[in-house]
Amino acid sequence: MAKLVYDFTEGNKDLKDLLGGKGANLAEMTNLGLPVPPGFIITTEACRQYLREGAVPAGLADEVSEHLRQLEKKMGRQLGDPADPLLVSVRSGAKFSMPGMMETVLNIGLSDESVGGLAKQSGSERFAWDSYRRLIQMFGKTVLGIDGEAFEHAIEEAKRAKGTKNDLDLDAGDLHGIVETFKELVQVHAGREFPQDPREQMDLAVLAVFRSWNADRAILYRRQERIPADLGTAVNIVAMVFGNLGMDSGTGVAFTRDPGSGQQGVYGDYLQNAQGEDVVAGIRNTVPLQDLEQIDAASYAQLMDIMQTLENHYRDLCDIEFTIERGKLWMLQTRVGKRTPAAAFRIACQLVDEGVIDLDEALSRVSGHDLTQLMFPQFSVDSDAARLTTGINASPGAAVGAVVFDSATAVRRAESGEAVILVRHETTPDDLAGIVAAVGVLTTRGGKTAHAAVVARGMGKPCVCGAEELVIDEDGPRLIAGATVIEEGGQISIDGTSGAVFEGRIPLQQPPIVDYFNGVLDPDGPDTSDLIRAVHRLLQHADERRRLGVLANADTPEDAARARRYGAQGIGLCRTEHMFLGERRALVERLVLADTVPERTAALAALLPLQRGDFIGVFEAMDGLPVTIRLLDPPLHEFLSDDAEVTARISAAKAAGLAPDDRDVKLLAALDRLHEVNPMMGLRGVRLGFVVPGLFALQTRAVAEAAIEARRRGHVVRPEIMVPLVATVTEFEITRRELAAVIAQVAKESGADLAIRIGTMIELPRAALTAGSIGASADFFSFGTNDLTQTTWGLSRDDVEGAFFPAYFKARVFDASPFETIDRAGVGRLIRIAVDEGTRANPLLTVGVCGEHGGDPDSIHFFDEVGLDYVSCSPFRVPVARLEAGRSAVQRAGIVRANETR
Amino acid sequence: MAKLVYDFTEGNKDLKDLLGGKGANLAEMTNLGLPVPPGFIITTEACRQYLREGAVPAGLADEVSEHLRQLEKKMGRQLGDPADPLLVSVRSGAKFSMPGMMETVLNIGLSDESVGGLAKQSGSERFAWDSYRRLIQMFGKTVLGIDGEAFEHAIEEAKRAKGTKNDLDLDAGDLHGIVETFKELVQVHAGREFPQDPREQMDLAVLAVFRSWNADRAILYRRQERIPADLGTAVNIVAMVFGNLGMDSGTGVAFTRDPGSGQQGVYGDYLQNAQGEDVVAGIRNTVPLQDLEQIDAASYAQLMDIMQTLENHYRDLCDIEFTIERGKLWMLQTRVGKRTPAAAFRIACQLVDEGVIDLDEALSRVSGHDLTQLMFPQFSVDSDAARLTTGINASPGAAVGAVVFDSATAVRRAESGEAVILVRHETTPDDLAGIVAAVGVLTTRGGKTAHAAVVARGMGKPCVCGAEELVIDEDGPRLIAGATVIEEGGQISIDGTSGAVFEGRIPLQQPPIVDYFNGVLDPDGPDTSDLIRAVHRLLQHADERRRLGVLANADTPEDAARARRYGAQGIGLCRTEHMFLGERRALVERLVLADTVPERTAALAALLPLQRGDFIGVFEAMDGLPVTIRLLDPPLHEFLSDDAEVTARISAAKAAGLAPDDRDVKLLAALDRLHEVNPMMGLRGVRLGFVVPGLFALQTRAVAEAAIEARRRGHVVRPEIMVPLVATVTEFEITRRELAAVIAQVAKESGADLAIRIGTMIELPRAALTAGSIGASADFFSFGTNDLTQTTWGLSRDDVEGAFFPAYFKARVFDASPFETIDRAGVGRLIRIAVDEGTRANPLLTVGVCGEHGGDPDSIHFFDEVGLDYVSCSPFRVPVARLEAGRSAVQRAGIVRANETR
Repeated sequence: MAKLVYDFTEGNKDLKDLLGGKGANLAEMTNLGLPVPPGFIITTEACRQYLREGAVPAGLADEVSEHLRQLEKKMGRQLGDPADPLLVSVRSGAKFSMPGMMETVLNIGLSDESVGGLAKQSGSERFAWDSYRRLIQMFGKTVLGIDGEAFEHAIEEAKRAKGTKNDLDLDAGDLHGIVETFKELVQVHAGREFPQDPREQMDLAVLAVFRSWNADRAILYRRQERIPADLGTAVNIVAMVFGNLGMDSGTGVAFTRDPGSGQQGVYGDYLQNAQGEDVVAGIRNTVPLQDLEQIDAASYAQLMDIMQTLENHYRDLCDIEFTIERGKLWMLQTRVGKRTPAAAFRIACQLVDEGVIDLDEALSRVSGHDLTQLMFPQFSVDSDAARLTTGINASPGAAVGAVVFDSATAVRRAESGEAVILVRHETTPDDLAGIVAAVGVLTTRGGKTAHAAVVARGMGKPCVCGAEELVIDEDGPRLIAGATVIEEGGQISIDGTSGAVFEGRIPLQQPPIVDYFNGVLDPDGPDTSDLIRAVHRLLQHADERRRLGVLANADTPEDAARARRYGAQGIGLCRTEHMFLGERRALVERLVLADTVPERTAALAALLPLQRGDFIGVFEAMDGLPVTIRLLDPPLHEFLSDDAEVTARISAAKAAGLAPDDRDVKLLAALDRLHEVNPMMGLRGVRLGFVVPGLFALQTRAVAEAAIEARRRGHVVRPEIMVPLVATVTEFEITRRELAAVIAQVAKESGADLAIRIGTMIELPRAALTAGSIGASADFFSFGTNDLTQTTWGLSRDDVEGAFFPAYFKARVFDASPFETIDRAGVGRLIRIAVDEGTRANPLLTVGVCGEHGGDPDSIHFFDEVGLDYVSCSPFRVPVARLEAGRSAVQRAGIVRANETR
Repeated sequence: MAKLVYDFTEGNKDLKDLLGGKGANLAEMTNLGLPVPPGFIITTEACRQYLREGAVPAGLADEVSEHLRQLEKKMGRQLGDPADPLLVSVRSGAKFSMPGMMETVLNIGLSDESVGGLAKQSGSERFAWDSYRRLIQMFGKTVLGIDGEAFEHAIEEAKRAKGTKNDLDLDAGDLHGIVETFKELVQVHAGREFPQDPREQMDLAVLAVFRSWNADRAILYRRQERIPADLGTAVNIVAMVFGNLGMDSGTGVAFTRDPGSGQQGVYGDYLQNAQGEDVVAGIRNTVPLQDLEQIDAASYAQLMDIMQTLENHYRDLCDIEFTIERGKLWMLQTRVGKRTPAAAFRIACQLVDEGVIDLDEALSRVSGHDLTQLMFPQFSVDSDAARLTTGINASPGAAVGAVVFDSATAVRRAESGEAVILVRHETTPDDLAGIVAAVGVLTTRGGKTAHAAVVARGMGKPCVCGAEELVIDEDGPRLIAGATVIEEGGQISIDGTSGAVFEGRIPLQQPPIVDYFNGVLDPDGPDTSDLIRAVHRLLQHADERRRLGVLANADTPEDAARARRYGAQGIGLCRTEHMFLGERRALVERLVLADTVPERTAALAALLPLQRGDFIGVFEAMDGLPVTIRLLDPPLHEFLSDDAEVTARISAAKAAGLAPDDRDVKLLAALDRLHEVNPMMGLRGVRLGFVVPGLFALQTRAVAEAAIEARRRGHVVRPEIMVPLVATVTEFEITRRELAAVIAQVAKESGADLAIRIGTMIELPRAALTAGSIGASADFFSFGTNDLTQTTWGLSRDDVEGAFFPAYFKARVFDASPFETIDRAGVGRLIRIAVDEGTRANPLLTVGVCGEHGGDPDSIHFFDEVGLDYVSCSPFRVPVARLEAGRSAVQRAGIVRANETR
């Protein structure tokens, strides 16, 4: 049977999985010889076992008894001794810090019998009764589940009776009275007596800490922070030390350097005659840590020493908690300190400059999440703007603009220089122009995986989705939020990071880092901030270290140019569907309605120059870099007129006694024919090539002719063509032959050499499972992880989020949506199979990913691990991908272990 | 480089893959010392290489030259020798017989120069010119692609000029004239001269045979016969022998025993002074083979000897082709003979009785496809009923009845004893009652995987789908077929085997084998036919041999009872969705619309007795056998009222100035909320359990209470519960805990012991990929191969068939629909992974399949191979599954090799 309890002397900082962060670090400090109160740790494994089985693990009680015996021996006091009681705290401590999310009970060991002993030993009746009061209050709330209001109310009553508003005015007698009241409250609310047996107090507190792992707030916090749900918490049982035994006692928190700037030098707060919870409660004002030098020079000197020791030992900024009990300094906690994203970059580089760590380790100390935070526009100051509602924080950043309700208006107003926010029930591909024109998007329906959210994140635009309290009155048009009505053109501000929506304008601040990425801010310029220098330095280092290429998903010359500025090494996914939207719909309709070969040929011919023009622009923007163009993927009906509109036109004609337009009649028939029950799994992708003769040939010709034209204009062009939704090698081979013939024909016509690589998306399980054969025929694989996730899980993104994802998060079926972070066991396994078998069949095969996961930090590490050649992500996420690819390389090289602090 | 040409002396009958069936058997006969004209075979590999690369394989010409040289030496004649030309035939010959589907050219070697030599050697000018005429005609059509009509027309012209209608009246001069005309036709239509170089004739003919592998009719035939598209054909080059050199010559076909009854004794036809093609053309009447004894006693005796030799050698009925050239017998072909399904069973048992083969081998000689054919009702005689149209043959068998256009009418008329055929545009789950009531189904839309087709096949009912020429006039209602109008109640006959639809009644015949399966015909009775005895004997043997269990998919007590009679060893899939249809919809709506817990509880409570009643009936029918009940799977909106109807009611109320019914308003909101873009991948299966509290608990309670009630009535009950659409082990574990708690509760209430196994469908790729974890928690896996195929391929069955399956068959992306026969490379690989990893994690795990593939013969062999414990299929297919499971066991045991003859 595994050991379930560790003494502080038995642990170390690398045992966080088993001992939690707090326990592992207390053990580390103990072994460094620092003054830590003695104690022991119940492991996370004990917690997991308890939560799994609903029963206290066998043997735990005996192990605890043994460690308690040793603790009592070390302290020379017995738990619950009426004459001189040992008191202990029972504290949670998970692998990853979850501040305030779980439970703590102090002063365990006090009882009606021993409170007198504590009074005698401490020399303070008041202290003893206040400690007992605190115990019953914490125990009642935490262990017995009594509403904290009841206790607060009793204290308020006592103060009113005394005619004071200050706790400190309550004397020992008052507190004794409160203790009696508290005990009655326990009896009434919990239906049992407050336990007088100190060991029972301790055991019950331990189980309460175990259970607090699954409190609602803890679950919520883990989901937000992407902490796995199955880790469990350790429990630390520590001899109590008291900062509230007089003015020679006190408690404080400190950082070993400034967590905002990273500058060396202490930084903290101290409070005399207080316990830690008093600092947190903010009842009295703290003093700067420097003032401690005046109050207790010896302790101050010792603390400075300890902090230096810790920084040298952890080679990073640490935060600490300490208590001084009658002039004796005790260390209660340390850990590698949390910091702001900006400070993370600054501190990492400063530690390099100080010679504490090298650049590899510095890179491992920052993250893509940090960098993302730095890139969003922010509201610059608090404002008195009225909050209208809070929706789902679908794409982070802040935006301010005029409300518009349709794409056309968005484009029109934006062209006249106005910042607009597109407000829709939900968006469709037709709203793309509007989203492009807008500075932000607000929808009343949908969640983080809705169309609006996905597109906005792709563009790095703020988006709030699912703001269900808002009503769009189409007749106005206007936006109604309770009593507030905002007409078209009215100003609102949205915060995609929090989901908040405000009436009116809140000043915005574009972070200078975006100017740096855009190349308008020189990272080495004299006025450049430390932050930009640090980001630049670490990104440069990431670029040096990373094995993974970073490409971008971009459909237009503008996006391509931005991707390039942000550091993309090519376009990994250039979608062609937008090239069939807008005014070009009419041409697609001609194609679909063509009855004869000449009609079809004419429709295709009309599309050719438009497609060619699209591609020339992208090739010019990506001079010298590869551009991967995907053949048309979505079902054709997405490009046709709206069913209802056509029906309405036909009805109107009939009502007017006229024959309906022949084209409308044919269109309606086509819409009917093309209607699909499950369009995601219908006639799309490579299948279109078998059903619409000439479609892929047209697109290929456009690519080939565009390549020749761009080359004529002096550019180096590296086109690649990608076939979507392939399930069998035969589909791919037939399509490949068709494409190759067109390319050869164009090459012949132009007299030019024309090499275009032809590869396939791997986005169906069957493609991954037969990658050995497909790989032998393809030049490259690009994993379409969005569709691959949909089919592997049998989940339609369009449907599931609102329908049952909330229930799934609650039940902890998964902690992160598989559409955000790659599902390693399922989708990831298919990727591994395809990479292994594809490259075995064809050692020259290039493998990459172009699904949304390509820009997700966690997923990037997985892609590196399985040996992909590149990730392709939205332009906005290119720097994040560069950074994470570098971090992954460094970690995989084993140069430093992953920084496990969160 | 692989050898591309084999002499007959180098091959044998086991080399069919390489030499094709014809070539391998010619080689076998050659080596048996039978009189086979000398020749050689170009391999299928050469064909495949040619088709793949579009160029003649390197080295082929040299190998052919070498073998031709040997052939000339053996025959003592040179190809194209003007004095005494060697003539050869160039014949196709694939691994599996594809009669008439590919090309043959006879008399290669004749030219303007050598025709005279042939005349001299044969002593017949007319024979020589007729042979040359035949060459140019076959070569023109086959090699040069000239329309055969042109040649026929020229012959007709010549006969008209001569004033005769009989070919035999044309003399040598006439035929010489026709040859000249033919050569002109070649020049005009092919733009080249008829090649005079005999080697060029031969080489071109070989390539034409290669190419004929991909002729439209060959592709179509292969698809129907499920012959793989990538085998290619061999080419046989054989010295010509002539049956048309006078009355001492002739040609014939024969079977070594009667292919209808299996009785020993020759059976064949003979035609004097003729070539094989004349027999096929049916220009002159053949005589029974026995008459040959009178015509040429020596040859007849030799032929009888040879046929005995062949039967002894092949240990099976053989068919042969032979030619007698001036009294000399030549064997031109043999193969294991095709036979009717009934004869297959009879012959197999007769060969056992004769001691030629054992029962294992007999079992391998029949197939599930044969047995299926025997089970369908048939039109008993040809009839003069008018054929209205031919649709898609979606579910085989014949049916006669009154036309009805809706389920309610179908049920009403059926209840009054009338046979009805349900005619719909397409069917939905709501038509289930109508399909059950009808004797057959006819739809104007959809194909073999449409709802109507799938359900009808499941029930073993005839169904014709996609009869697009028929118009349903809803106003009548009536069925319009061109000029014919059939009112409701009018009689039609449908043939689901051919797809034909007739007006009026054609007499039907229920095959007695169905009476045997239903237990009303004693297989050992004195009047029982040989056929039934043979089927019974082989099925009994299959049951003895098979490792695979055979269970049935059945939802009602009636289906369960039938399945049991047909030999099912339990119910592998009892769907519960029909239990929520019909009158119970109102209860489901109550459940969906419940706003409060009491409302929901009440709705569930109302469903409980109904569900319980359903299960009691099934348990009683399956006394002693396992019954696997699947929890509710389809999306809830399938059970709600029709969207359009609710909208109409609301509109009507508004139009009348009334407030719409509150329930309708809520219903519309629910329909809106539950609408899904891709319902296949939405809120269904196990996901429902997370979103509709109490639903699965209700179903589980109904199962548990029904089990206890059935047991109280004296039955042995073996219930199992199956959770659908699981993707993660967590979903399964949470659901399993919920179910186990309900079962324990019911057991406690009833004071009974209650063991119910709980398992899961494996129907998502992710479930298969994580089967190691899921298997550890489950009692059984049941592969839902329908959904697993949909998700693995990203194909929605509802959408794809009409949309692009025809194009995919044409392009040979696949030869059999993956929804009919399991896709081994993709879906099959997932099944292998899940079986291996699931059983490794849990050696007690039971694994089976309940998708439609469970009744498909090819797929059953795969399921046996991967180690499934059972297949579950529709009751109607249970005997087929038993037979195929037995065949698979025998084949896998290596007792006999698979009978490769098709």
